[in-house]
Amino acid sequence: MAELLKGKPVADRLTEQNVARAEKLKANGIIPTLAIVRLGENPGDLSYERGALKRAEATGIAVKQFVFAEEMAQAELLDQIAAINADDRIHGVLIFRPLPKHIDDQAVCDALAPEKDMDGITSGSMAGVFMGTEEGFPPCTAEACMEILDYYGVDLSGRKVTVMGRSLVIGKPAAMMAMDRNATVTVLHSRTALEDFQAAGAGADVVIAALGRAKMIGPDRLGRDQYIIDVGINVDEDGKLCGDVDFEAAEPLAAGITPVPGGVGSVTTAMLMKHVIQAAERTVK
Amino acid sequence: MAELLKGKPVADRLTEQNVARAEKLKANGIIPTLAIVRLGENPGDLSYERGALKRAEATGIAVKQFVFAEEMAQAELLDQIAAINADDRIHGVLIFRPLPKHIDDQAVCDALAPEKDMDGITSGSMAGVFMGTEEGFPPCTAEACMEILDYYGVDLSGRKVTVMGRSLVIGKPAAMMAMDRNATVTVLHSRTALEDFQAAGAGADVVIAALGRAKMIGPDRLGRDQYIIDVGINVDEDGKLCGDVDFEAAEPLAAGITPVPGGVGSVTTAMLMKHVIQAAERTVK
Repeated sequence: MAELLKGKPVADRLTEQNVARAEKLKANGIIPTLAIVRLGENPGDLSYERGALKRAEATGIAVKQFVFAEEMAQAELLDQIAAINADDRIHGVLIFRPLPKHIDDQAVCDALAPEKDMDGITSGSMAGVFMGTEEGFPPCTAEACMEILDYYGVDLSGRKVTVMGRSLVIGKPAAMMAMDRNATVTVLHSRTALEDFQAAGAGADVVIAALGRAKMIGPDRLGRDQYIIDVGINVDEDGKLCGDVDFEAAEPLAAGITPVPGGVGSVTTAMLMKHVIQAAERTVK
Repeated sequence: MAELLKGKPVADRLTEQNVARAEKLKANGIIPTLAIVRLGENPGDLSYERGALKRAEATGIAVKQFVFAEEMAQAELLDQIAAINADDRIHGVLIFRPLPKHIDDQAVCDALAPEKDMDGITSGSMAGVFMGTEEGFPPCTAEACMEILDYYGVDLSGRKVTVMGRSLVIGKPAAMMAMDRNATVTVLHSRTALEDFQAAGAGADVVIAALGRAKMIGPDRLGRDQYIIDVGINVDEDGKLCGDVDFEAAEPLAAGITPVPGGVGSVTTAMLMKHVIQAAERTVK
Protein backbone atom coordinates (compact mmCIF):
# COMPACT_ATOMS: atom_id res chain seq x y z
CA MET A 1 0.00 0.00 0.00
CA ALA A 2 1.25 3.41 -0.94
CA GLU A 3 2.10 6.20 1.44
CA LEU A 4 -0.66 8.78 1.17
CA LEU A 5 1.03 12.07 0.30
CA LYS A 6 -1.51 14.36 1.91
CA GLY A 7 -1.25 18.08 1.30
CA LYS A 8 -2.33 19.26 4.73
CA PRO A 9 0.88 18.58 6.69
CA VAL A 10 2.84 20.14 3.84
CA ALA A 11 0.68 23.26 3.95
CA ASP A 12 0.89 23.32 7.75
CA ARG A 13 4.68 23.23 7.74
CA LEU A 14 4.82 25.91 5.05
CA THR A 15 2.41 28.07 7.02
CA GLU A 16 4.45 27.65 10.17
CA GLN A 17 7.54 28.86 8.29
CA ASN A 18 5.53 31.68 6.71
CA VAL A 19 4.25 32.83 10.11
CA ALA A 20 7.79 33.12 11.46
CA ARG A 21 8.93 35.08 8.42
CA ALA A 22 5.86 37.33 8.54
CA GLU A 23 6.61 38.13 12.18
CA LYS A 24 10.16 39.08 11.31
CA LEU A 25 8.88 41.40 8.61
CA LYS A 26 6.41 43.00 11.01
CA ALA A 27 9.20 43.53 13.54
CA ASN A 28 10.80 45.59 10.77
CA GLY A 29 7.61 47.57 10.23
CA ILE A 30 6.50 45.74 7.11
CA ILE A 31 3.06 44.18 6.92
CA PRO A 32 3.18 41.62 4.09
CA THR A 33 0.19 42.41 1.92
CA LEU A 34 -1.56 40.56 -0.86
CA ALA A 35 -3.94 42.18 -3.35
CA ILE A 36 -6.64 39.95 -4.79
CA VAL A 37 -8.17 41.15 -8.05
CA ARG A 38 -11.47 39.58 -9.02
CA LEU A 39 -13.99 40.41 -11.73
CA GLY A 40 -17.48 39.03 -11.20
CA GLU A 41 -18.61 36.27 -8.85
CA ASN A 42 -17.40 33.01 -10.36
CA PRO A 43 -18.08 30.29 -7.74
CA GLY A 44 -14.66 28.72 -8.27
CA ASP A 45 -12.97 32.08 -7.70
CA LEU A 46 -15.05 32.74 -4.59
CA SER A 47 -14.21 29.35 -3.15
CA TYR A 48 -10.47 29.81 -3.74
CA GLU A 49 -10.68 33.35 -2.37
CA ARG A 50 -12.26 32.13 0.87
CA GLY A 51 -9.43 29.65 1.29
CA ALA A 52 -6.83 32.31 0.55
CA LEU A 53 -8.35 34.81 3.00
CA LYS A 54 -8.38 32.19 5.74
CA ARG A 55 -4.80 31.17 5.01
CA ALA A 56 -3.67 34.81 4.89
CA GLU A 57 -5.21 35.46 8.28
CA ALA A 58 -3.55 32.38 9.76
CA THR A 59 -0.24 33.55 8.33
CA GLY A 60 -0.38 37.18 9.38
CA ILE A 61 -0.71 38.52 5.85
CA ALA A 62 -3.00 41.46 5.08
CA VAL A 63 -5.29 41.19 2.08
CA LYS A 64 -6.70 44.01 -0.02
CA GLN A 65 -9.58 42.88 -2.16
CA PHE A 66 -10.16 44.57 -5.49
CA VAL A 67 -13.56 43.33 -6.61
CA PHE A 68 -15.03 44.66 -9.82
CA ALA A 69 -18.04 44.05 -12.03
CA GLU A 70 -17.63 41.42 -14.71
CA GLU A 71 -18.37 44.13 -17.30
CA MET A 72 -15.43 46.30 -16.21
CA ALA A 73 -13.64 47.92 -19.14
CA GLN A 74 -10.15 46.65 -19.89
CA ALA A 75 -8.61 50.12 -19.72
CA GLU A 76 -10.02 50.57 -16.24
CA LEU A 77 -8.60 47.21 -15.11
CA LEU A 78 -5.18 48.14 -16.50
CA ASP A 79 -5.36 51.44 -14.59
CA GLN A 80 -6.10 49.56 -11.40
CA ILE A 81 -3.17 47.21 -11.97
CA ALA A 82 -0.88 50.17 -12.64
CA ALA A 83 -2.01 51.72 -9.34
CA ILE A 84 -1.36 48.43 -7.51
CA ASN A 85 2.09 48.15 -9.13
CA ALA A 86 2.89 51.63 -7.84
CA ASP A 87 1.60 51.00 -4.32
CA ASP A 88 4.56 50.14 -2.07
CA ARG A 89 2.26 48.77 0.60
CA ILE A 90 1.15 45.93 -1.68
CA HIS A 91 3.77 43.20 -2.10
CA GLY A 92 1.95 40.67 -4.21
CA VAL A 93 -1.05 40.34 -6.49
CA LEU A 94 -3.33 37.44 -7.36
CA ILE A 95 -5.56 38.05 -10.38
CA PHE A 96 -8.36 35.55 -10.89
CA ARG A 97 -8.33 34.08 -14.37
CA PRO A 98 -9.72 33.26 -16.83
CA LEU A 99 -10.86 36.88 -17.14
CA PRO A 100 -14.13 37.79 -18.87
CA LYS A 101 -13.92 37.35 -22.62
CA HIS A 102 -13.89 41.04 -23.53
CA ILE A 103 -10.58 41.46 -21.72
CA ASP A 104 -7.24 40.64 -23.36
CA ASP A 105 -5.63 38.21 -20.95
CA GLN A 106 -2.13 38.84 -22.32
CA ALA A 107 -2.43 42.60 -21.87
CA VAL A 108 -3.40 42.11 -18.23
CA CYS A 109 -0.54 39.67 -17.58
CA ASP A 110 1.91 42.05 -19.26
CA ALA A 111 0.65 44.94 -17.12
CA LEU A 112 1.50 43.30 -13.81
CA ALA A 113 4.93 43.97 -12.31
CA PRO A 114 6.83 40.63 -12.23
CA GLU A 115 8.03 41.29 -8.67
CA LYS A 116 4.38 41.36 -7.54
CA ASP A 117 3.32 38.40 -9.68
CA MET A 118 2.39 35.76 -7.09
CA ASP A 119 1.26 33.03 -9.49
CA GLY A 120 3.63 33.00 -12.46
CA ILE A 121 1.48 34.82 -15.00
CA THR A 122 4.01 37.41 -16.25
CA SER A 123 6.72 36.72 -18.77
CA GLY A 124 9.21 37.89 -16.13
CA SER A 125 8.11 35.01 -13.90
CA MET A 126 8.25 32.58 -16.81
CA ALA A 127 11.81 33.67 -17.60
CA GLY A 128 12.69 33.19 -13.93
CA VAL A 129 11.32 29.64 -13.98
CA PHE A 130 13.11 28.86 -17.23
CA MET A 131 16.41 30.34 -16.14
CA GLY A 132 16.19 29.22 -12.52
CA THR A 133 16.56 32.80 -11.29
CA GLU A 134 14.59 34.77 -8.74
CA GLU A 135 12.73 36.90 -11.23
CA GLY A 136 9.04 36.91 -10.39
CA PHE A 137 7.52 33.71 -8.99
CA PRO A 138 6.64 30.28 -10.39
CA PRO A 139 2.99 29.24 -10.62
CA CYS A 140 1.89 28.17 -7.12
CA THR A 141 0.59 24.78 -8.23
CA ALA A 142 3.82 23.76 -9.98
CA GLU A 143 5.85 24.78 -6.95
CA ALA A 144 3.41 22.96 -4.66
CA CYS A 145 4.34 19.70 -6.43
CA MET A 146 8.00 20.28 -5.53
CA GLU A 147 7.09 21.22 -1.96
CA ILE A 148 5.18 17.96 -1.50
CA LEU A 149 8.09 15.91 -2.82
CA ASP A 150 10.46 17.78 -0.50
CA TYR A 151 8.21 17.29 2.49
CA TYR A 152 7.95 13.54 1.98
CA GLY A 153 11.69 13.22 1.43
CA VAL A 154 11.61 12.35 -2.25
CA ASP A 155 14.97 13.55 -3.58
CA LEU A 156 14.80 14.18 -7.33
CA SER A 157 18.52 14.30 -8.02
CA GLY A 158 19.47 11.68 -10.59
CA ARG A 159 15.91 10.30 -10.59
CA LYS A 160 13.63 9.99 -13.58
CA VAL A 161 10.71 12.39 -13.45
CA THR A 162 7.95 12.04 -16.02
CA VAL A 163 5.72 15.09 -16.35
CA MET A 164 2.39 14.37 -18.01
CA GLY A 165 1.18 17.62 -19.55
CA ARG A 166 2.98 20.63 -21.00
CA SER A 167 0.87 23.58 -19.87
CA LEU A 168 2.49 26.87 -18.91
CA VAL A 169 0.76 26.69 -15.55
CA ILE A 170 2.00 23.27 -14.47
CA GLY A 171 3.69 20.94 -16.94
CA LYS A 172 6.42 23.19 -18.30
CA PRO A 173 7.33 24.93 -15.02
CA ALA A 174 7.24 21.64 -13.08
CA ALA A 175 9.59 20.15 -15.68
CA MET A 176 12.01 23.06 -15.32
CA MET A 177 11.90 22.91 -11.53
CA ALA A 178 12.54 19.16 -11.53
CA MET A 179 15.44 19.68 -13.95
CA ASP A 180 16.89 22.33 -11.63
CA ARG A 181 16.78 19.67 -8.91
CA ASN A 182 18.93 17.48 -11.16
CA ALA A 183 16.15 15.13 -12.23
CA THR A 184 16.20 13.53 -15.66
CA VAL A 185 12.93 14.84 -17.03
CA THR A 186 10.60 13.60 -19.76
CA VAL A 187 7.53 15.60 -20.73
CA LEU A 188 4.55 13.73 -22.18
CA HIS A 189 1.46 15.31 -23.70
CA SER A 190 -1.57 14.77 -25.88
CA ARG A 191 0.55 14.23 -28.98
CA THR A 192 2.81 11.62 -27.40
CA ALA A 193 2.36 8.19 -28.97
CA LEU A 194 0.54 5.76 -26.65
CA GLU A 195 3.42 3.29 -26.43
CA ASP A 196 5.88 6.09 -25.63
CA PHE A 197 3.49 7.40 -23.00
CA GLN A 198 3.22 3.98 -21.42
CA ALA A 199 6.96 3.38 -21.49
CA ALA A 200 7.86 6.79 -20.01
CA GLY A 201 5.10 6.46 -17.43
CA ALA A 202 6.24 2.98 -16.42
CA GLY A 203 9.92 3.90 -16.36
CA ALA A 204 9.63 6.94 -14.10
CA ASP A 205 10.64 7.20 -10.47
CA VAL A 206 8.31 10.15 -10.01
CA VAL A 207 5.19 10.98 -12.02
CA ILE A 208 3.61 14.42 -12.10
CA ALA A 209 0.19 14.12 -13.73
CA ALA A 210 -1.26 17.34 -15.09
CA LEU A 211 -3.33 16.55 -18.13
CA GLY A 212 -6.73 17.65 -16.87
CA ARG A 213 -8.50 14.42 -17.80
CA ALA A 214 -10.40 12.46 -15.16
CA LYS A 215 -8.72 9.17 -14.18
CA MET A 216 -6.83 9.03 -17.48
CA ILE A 217 -3.66 7.64 -15.89
CA GLY A 218 -4.08 4.02 -14.89
CA PRO A 219 -1.69 1.11 -14.27
CA ASP A 220 -1.07 0.73 -18.02
CA ARG A 221 0.68 4.11 -17.97
CA LEU A 222 2.45 3.65 -14.65
CA GLY A 223 5.12 1.47 -13.11
CA ARG A 224 5.63 0.12 -9.60
CA ASP A 225 6.94 1.81 -6.47
CA GLN A 226 6.62 5.26 -7.93
CA TYR A 227 5.82 8.57 -6.30
CA ILE A 228 2.77 10.00 -8.01
CA ILE A 229 1.81 13.66 -7.76
CA ASP A 230 -1.68 14.12 -9.16
CA VAL A 231 -2.37 17.74 -10.10
CA GLY A 232 -5.70 17.07 -11.80
CA ILE A 233 -8.95 18.28 -10.29
CA ASN A 234 -11.79 16.81 -12.30
CA VAL A 235 -15.32 15.58 -11.74
CA ASP A 236 -15.96 11.89 -12.42
CA GLU A 237 -19.07 10.25 -13.86
CA ASP A 238 -20.64 10.13 -10.38
CA GLY A 239 -20.12 13.86 -9.87
CA LYS A 240 -17.29 13.31 -7.41
CA LEU A 241 -13.96 15.14 -7.43
CA CYS A 242 -11.13 13.07 -8.85
CA GLY A 243 -7.62 13.48 -10.22
CA ASP A 244 -5.96 12.65 -13.52
CA VAL A 245 -4.82 9.38 -11.98
CA ASP A 246 -7.13 6.43 -11.44
CA PHE A 247 -6.44 6.40 -7.71
CA GLU A 248 -8.11 3.09 -6.86
CA ALA A 249 -6.11 1.23 -9.48
CA ALA A 250 -2.83 3.11 -9.09
CA GLU A 251 -2.54 3.29 -5.33
CA PRO A 252 -1.77 -0.40 -4.67
CA LEU A 253 1.22 -0.23 -7.02
CA ALA A 254 2.70 3.09 -5.93
CA ALA A 255 5.25 3.96 -3.25
CA GLY A 256 3.42 7.21 -2.59
CA ILE A 257 0.49 9.07 -4.13
CA THR A 258 -1.34 12.34 -3.52
CA PRO A 259 -5.09 12.10 -2.96
CA VAL A 260 -7.62 14.28 -4.83
CA PRO A 261 -9.00 16.23 -3.07
CA GLY A 262 -6.56 16.75 -0.21
CA GLY A 263 -3.32 16.62 -2.17
CA VAL A 264 -1.68 19.27 -4.33
CA GLY A 265 -4.71 21.56 -4.17
CA SER A 266 -4.42 21.97 -0.43
CA VAL A 267 -0.86 23.29 -0.68
CA THR A 268 -1.43 26.08 -3.23
CA THR A 269 -2.74 28.80 -0.89
CA ALA A 270 0.14 28.21 1.54
CA MET A 271 2.50 28.53 -1.43
CA LEU A 272 0.75 31.73 -2.45
CA MET A 273 1.41 33.12 1.03
CA LYS A 274 5.05 32.08 0.80
CA HIS A 275 5.34 34.13 -2.37
CA VAL A 276 3.83 37.17 -0.63
CA ILE A 277 6.39 36.83 2.16
CA GLN A 278 9.22 36.42 -0.33
CA ALA A 279 8.06 39.48 -2.28
CA ALA A 280 7.92 41.52 0.92
CA GLU A 281 11.37 40.28 1.95
CA ARG A 282 12.83 41.20 -1.44
CA THR A 283 11.67 44.81 -0.95
CA VAL A 284 13.90 44.99 2.14
CA LYS A 285 17.07 43.73 0.47
CA MET B 1 25.50 4.74 -44.01
CA ALA B 2 23.90 7.82 -42.57
CA GLU B 3 22.71 10.84 -44.50
CA LEU B 4 25.18 13.63 -43.82
CA LEU B 5 23.16 16.55 -42.49
CA LYS B 6 25.43 19.32 -43.70
CA GLY B 7 24.79 22.84 -42.55
CA LYS B 8 25.70 24.64 -45.76
CA PRO B 9 22.58 23.92 -47.82
CA VAL B 10 20.47 24.81 -44.76
CA ALA B 11 22.29 28.13 -44.40
CA ASP B 12 22.03 28.73 -48.14
CA ARG B 13 18.27 28.23 -48.17
CA LEU B 14 17.89 30.45 -45.11
CA THR B 15 20.02 33.13 -46.71
CA GLU B 16 18.00 32.96 -49.91
CA GLN B 17 14.82 33.53 -47.89
CA ASN B 18 16.53 36.28 -45.89
CA VAL B 19 17.65 38.09 -49.05
CA ALA B 20 14.09 38.17 -50.39
CA ARG B 21 12.76 39.52 -47.10
CA ALA B 22 15.57 42.08 -46.85
CA GLU B 23 14.70 43.33 -50.34
CA LYS B 24 11.08 43.75 -49.36
CA LEU B 25 12.13 45.77 -46.32
CA LYS B 26 14.39 47.96 -48.43
CA ALA B 27 11.53 48.56 -50.87
CA ASN B 28 9.73 49.99 -47.84
CA GLY B 29 12.67 52.21 -46.99
CA ILE B 30 14.02 50.05 -44.18
CA ILE B 31 17.61 48.86 -44.18
CA PRO B 32 17.80 45.90 -41.78
CA THR B 33 20.71 46.69 -39.49
CA LEU B 34 22.67 44.65 -36.99
CA ALA B 35 24.88 46.13 -34.28
CA ILE B 36 27.81 44.01 -33.17
CA VAL B 37 29.23 44.87 -29.75
CA ARG B 38 32.70 43.54 -29.01
CA LEU B 39 35.13 44.23 -26.18
CA GLY B 40 38.75 43.34 -26.88
CA GLU B 41 40.15 41.11 -29.60
CA ASN B 42 39.31 37.53 -28.63
CA PRO B 43 40.28 35.32 -31.62
CA GLY B 44 37.03 33.33 -31.35
CA ASP B 45 34.99 36.54 -31.42
CA LEU B 46 36.96 37.88 -34.38
CA SER B 47 36.48 34.66 -36.32
CA TYR B 48 32.71 34.62 -35.70
CA GLU B 49 32.54 38.32 -36.53
CA ARG B 50 34.22 37.80 -39.88
CA GLY B 51 31.67 35.11 -40.71
CA ALA B 52 28.80 37.33 -39.60
CA LEU B 53 30.02 40.32 -41.64
CA LYS B 54 30.31 38.16 -44.74
CA ARG B 55 26.88 36.65 -44.19
CA ALA B 56 25.36 40.09 -43.54
CA GLU B 57 26.79 41.42 -46.78
CA ALA B 58 25.46 38.42 -48.73
CA THR B 59 22.05 38.99 -47.14
CA GLY B 60 21.78 42.73 -47.64
CA ILE B 61 22.00 43.57 -43.97
CA ALA B 62 23.95 46.57 -42.73
CA VAL B 63 26.28 46.11 -39.77
CA LYS B 64 27.38 48.72 -37.26
CA GLN B 65 30.41 47.61 -35.29
CA PHE B 66 30.83 48.85 -31.76
CA VAL B 67 34.34 47.82 -30.81
CA PHE B 68 35.67 48.81 -27.40
CA ALA B 69 38.75 48.20 -25.30
CA GLU B 70 38.67 45.16 -23.05
CA GLU B 71 39.12 47.52 -20.06
CA MET B 72 35.95 49.50 -20.86
CA ALA B 73 34.01 50.43 -17.73
CA GLN B 74 30.70 48.70 -17.19
CA ALA B 75 28.79 51.97 -16.86
CA GLU B 76 30.10 53.08 -20.22
CA LEU B 77 29.06 49.80 -21.85
CA LEU B 78 25.57 50.13 -20.36
CA ASP B 79 25.36 53.68 -21.76
CA GLN B 80 26.29 52.39 -25.19
CA ILE B 81 23.64 49.68 -25.00
CA ALA B 82 21.03 52.22 -23.92
CA ALA B 83 21.96 54.36 -26.93
CA ILE B 84 21.66 51.33 -29.24
CA ASN B 85 18.29 50.45 -27.72
CA ALA B 86 17.09 53.98 -28.47
CA ASP B 87 18.41 54.04 -32.04
CA ASP B 88 15.55 53.20 -34.42
CA ARG B 89 17.97 52.51 -37.25
CA ILE B 90 19.40 49.51 -35.41
CA HIS B 91 17.10 46.46 -35.43
CA GLY B 92 19.20 43.87 -33.69
CA VAL B 93 22.25 43.52 -31.48
CA LEU B 94 24.82 40.79 -31.04
CA ILE B 95 27.00 41.18 -27.94
CA PHE B 96 30.06 38.95 -27.79
CA ARG B 97 30.21 36.98 -24.57
CA PRO B 98 31.71 35.97 -22.24
CA LEU B 99 32.43 39.59 -21.38
CA PRO B 100 35.61 40.58 -19.50
CA LYS B 101 35.47 39.56 -15.86
CA HIS B 102 35.06 43.05 -14.41
CA ILE B 103 31.70 43.37 -16.17
CA ASP B 104 28.49 41.95 -14.71
CA ASP B 105 27.13 39.75 -17.46
CA GLN B 106 23.61 39.76 -16.05
CA ALA B 107 23.49 43.57 -15.92
CA VAL B 108 24.47 43.73 -19.58
CA CYS B 109 21.90 41.13 -20.62
CA ASP B 110 19.22 42.94 -18.63
CA ALA B 111 20.13 46.24 -20.29
CA LEU B 112 19.45 45.04 -23.82
CA ALA B 113 15.94 45.54 -25.23
CA PRO B 114 14.42 42.07 -25.84
CA GLU B 115 13.13 43.14 -29.26
CA LYS B 116 16.72 43.77 -30.34
CA ASP B 117 18.13 40.66 -28.65
CA MET B 118 19.31 38.55 -31.60
CA ASP B 119 20.75 35.63 -29.63
CA GLY B 120 18.42 34.89 -26.72
CA ILE B 121 20.39 36.54 -23.92
CA THR B 122 17.61 38.62 -22.32
CA SER B 123 15.01 37.25 -19.96
CA GLY B 124 12.38 38.54 -22.40
CA SER B 125 13.77 36.18 -25.03
CA MET B 126 13.91 33.33 -22.52
CA ALA B 127 10.25 33.89 -21.61
CA GLY B 128 9.42 33.89 -25.31
CA VAL B 129 11.16 30.53 -25.79
CA PHE B 130 9.49 29.08 -22.71
CA MET B 131 6.03 30.35 -23.58
CA GLY B 132 6.35 29.80 -27.34
CA THR B 133 5.58 33.47 -28.02
CA GLU B 134 7.31 36.02 -30.24
CA GLU B 135 8.96 37.93 -27.44
CA GLY B 136 12.62 38.45 -28.22
CA PHE B 137 14.47 35.69 -30.08
CA PRO B 138 15.73 32.20 -29.21
CA PRO B 139 19.46 31.55 -29.10
CA CYS B 140 20.65 31.16 -32.72
CA THR B 141 22.31 27.79 -32.12
CA ALA B 142 19.22 26.17 -30.58
CA GLU B 143 17.06 27.40 -33.44
CA ALA B 144 19.69 26.23 -35.95
CA CYS B 145 19.11 22.66 -34.69
CA MET B 146 15.41 22.97 -35.54
CA GLU B 147 16.17 24.53 -38.91
CA ILE B 148 18.43 21.62 -39.84
CA LEU B 149 15.76 19.07 -38.87
CA ASP B 150 13.19 21.01 -40.90
CA TYR B 151 15.45 21.22 -43.91
CA TYR B 152 16.12 17.49 -43.97
CA GLY B 153 12.44 16.69 -43.53
CA VAL B 154 12.64 15.28 -40.00
CA ASP B 155 9.19 15.90 -38.54
CA LEU B 156 9.31 15.97 -34.74
CA SER B 157 5.60 15.59 -34.07
CA GLY B 158 4.96 12.52 -31.93
CA ARG B 159 8.65 11.56 -32.11
CA LYS B 160 10.97 11.03 -29.17
CA VAL B 161 13.62 13.73 -28.92
CA THR B 162 16.41 13.29 -26.41
CA VAL B 163 18.30 16.47 -25.60
CA MET B 164 21.70 15.88 -24.04
CA GLY B 165 22.56 18.97 -22.03
CA ARG B 166 20.48 21.51 -20.15
CA SER B 167 22.24 24.81 -20.80
CA LEU B 168 20.26 28.01 -21.26
CA VAL B 169 21.97 28.54 -24.60
CA ILE B 170 21.11 25.20 -26.19
CA GLY B 171 19.70 22.34 -24.12
CA LYS B 172 16.75 24.06 -22.46
CA PRO B 173 15.65 26.17 -25.44
CA ALA B 174 16.06 23.24 -27.87
CA ALA B 175 13.90 21.13 -25.53
CA MET B 176 11.17 23.78 -25.47
CA MET B 177 11.27 24.23 -29.24
CA ALA B 178 11.05 20.48 -29.82
CA MET B 179 8.13 20.31 -27.36
CA ASP B 180 6.38 23.10 -29.27
CA ARG B 181 6.76 20.92 -32.36
CA ASN B 182 4.89 18.18 -30.48
CA ALA B 183 7.89 16.02 -29.76
CA THR B 184 8.06 13.92 -26.61
CA VAL B 185 11.16 15.36 -25.02
CA THR B 186 13.64 13.97 -22.50
CA VAL B 187 16.49 16.12 -21.21
CA LEU B 188 19.67 14.38 -20.04
CA HIS B 189 22.57 16.04 -18.27
CA SER B 190 25.67 15.53 -16.17
CA ARG B 191 23.63 14.27 -13.21
CA THR B 192 21.65 11.71 -15.19
CA ALA B 193 22.48 8.14 -14.16
CA LEU B 194 24.53 6.31 -16.80
CA GLU B 195 21.94 3.60 -17.41
CA ASP B 196 19.19 6.21 -17.81
CA PHE B 197 21.41 8.16 -20.19
CA GLN B 198 22.04 5.06 -22.27
CA ALA B 199 18.37 4.07 -22.31
CA ALA B 200 17.09 7.53 -23.27
CA GLY B 201 19.86 7.90 -25.84
CA ALA B 202 19.10 4.51 -27.39
CA GLY B 203 15.32 5.02 -27.34
CA ALA B 204 15.27 8.40 -29.09
CA ASP B 205 14.21 9.08 -32.66
CA VAL B 206 16.21 12.30 -32.64
CA VAL B 207 19.24 13.15 -30.50
CA ILE B 208 20.45 16.69 -29.88
CA ALA B 209 23.89 16.50 -28.29
CA ALA B 210 25.00 19.64 -26.46
CA LEU B 211 27.17 18.62 -23.54
CA GLY B 212 30.42 20.27 -24.60
CA ARG B 213 32.53 17.13 -24.15
CA ALA B 214 34.59 15.82 -27.03
CA LYS B 215 33.27 12.56 -28.52
CA MET B 216 31.44 11.70 -25.31
CA ILE B 217 28.42 10.23 -27.10
CA GLY B 218 29.23 6.88 -28.64
CA PRO B 219 27.17 3.86 -29.72
CA ASP B 220 26.62 2.84 -26.08
CA ARG B 221 24.51 6.00 -25.64
CA LEU B 222 22.77 5.86 -29.01
CA GLY B 223 20.33 3.64 -30.88
CA ARG B 224 19.95 2.80 -34.53
CA ASP B 225 18.45 4.80 -37.40
CA GLN B 226 18.41 8.01 -35.43
CA TYR B 227 18.83 11.59 -36.53
CA ILE B 228 21.72 13.06 -34.60
CA ILE B 229 22.29 16.80 -34.27
CA ASP B 230 25.72 17.42 -32.80
CA VAL B 231 26.02 20.90 -31.31
CA GLY B 232 29.41 20.36 -29.69
CA ILE B 233 32.49 22.13 -30.99
CA ASN B 234 35.51 20.67 -29.19
CA VAL B 235 39.13 19.92 -29.90
CA ASP B 236 40.16 16.26 -29.78
CA GLU B 237 43.46 14.76 -28.57
CA ASP B 238 44.99 15.33 -32.02
CA GLY B 239 44.08 19.02 -31.96
CA LYS B 240 41.30 18.55 -34.51
CA LEU B 241 37.78 20.00 -34.24
CA CYS B 242 35.21 17.44 -33.18
CA GLY B 243 31.69 17.27 -31.80
CA ASP B 244 30.15 15.78 -28.67
CA VAL B 245 29.36 12.67 -30.70
CA ASP B 246 31.98 10.11 -31.66
CA PHE B 247 31.26 10.57 -35.36
CA GLU B 248 33.26 7.63 -36.68
CA ALA B 249 31.51 5.19 -34.40
CA ALA B 250 28.03 6.73 -34.53
CA GLU B 251 27.71 7.46 -38.22
CA PRO B 252 27.33 3.85 -39.43
CA LEU B 253 24.35 3.33 -37.10
CA ALA B 254 22.51 6.59 -37.71
CA ALA B 255 19.87 7.58 -40.24
CA GLY B 256 21.33 11.08 -40.38
CA ILE B 257 24.06 12.98 -38.55
CA THR B 258 25.52 16.49 -38.65
CA PRO B 259 29.27 16.74 -39.20
CA VAL B 260 31.55 18.86 -37.00
CA PRO B 261 32.70 21.20 -38.42
CA GLY B 262 30.22 21.91 -41.21
CA GLY B 263 27.02 21.13 -39.31
CA VAL B 264 25.12 23.22 -36.77
CA GLY B 265 27.89 25.82 -36.57
CA SER B 266 27.55 26.75 -40.22
CA VAL B 267 23.86 27.63 -39.79
CA THR B 268 24.14 30.05 -36.85
CA THR B 269 25.13 33.21 -38.73
CA ALA B 270 22.31 32.69 -41.25
CA MET B 271 19.95 32.29 -38.29
CA LEU B 272 21.36 35.48 -36.78
CA MET B 273 20.52 37.31 -40.02
CA LYS B 274 17.01 35.84 -39.99
CA HIS B 275 16.53 37.36 -36.54
CA VAL B 276 17.69 40.77 -37.78
CA ILE B 277 15.16 40.57 -40.62
CA GLN B 278 12.40 39.48 -38.23
CA ALA B 279 13.25 42.32 -35.85
CA ALA B 280 13.13 44.81 -38.70
CA GLU B 281 9.82 43.38 -39.93
CA ARG B 282 8.32 43.62 -36.46
CA THR B 283 9.05 47.35 -36.38
CA VAL B 284 6.80 47.75 -39.42
CA LYS B 285 3.80 45.89 -38.01
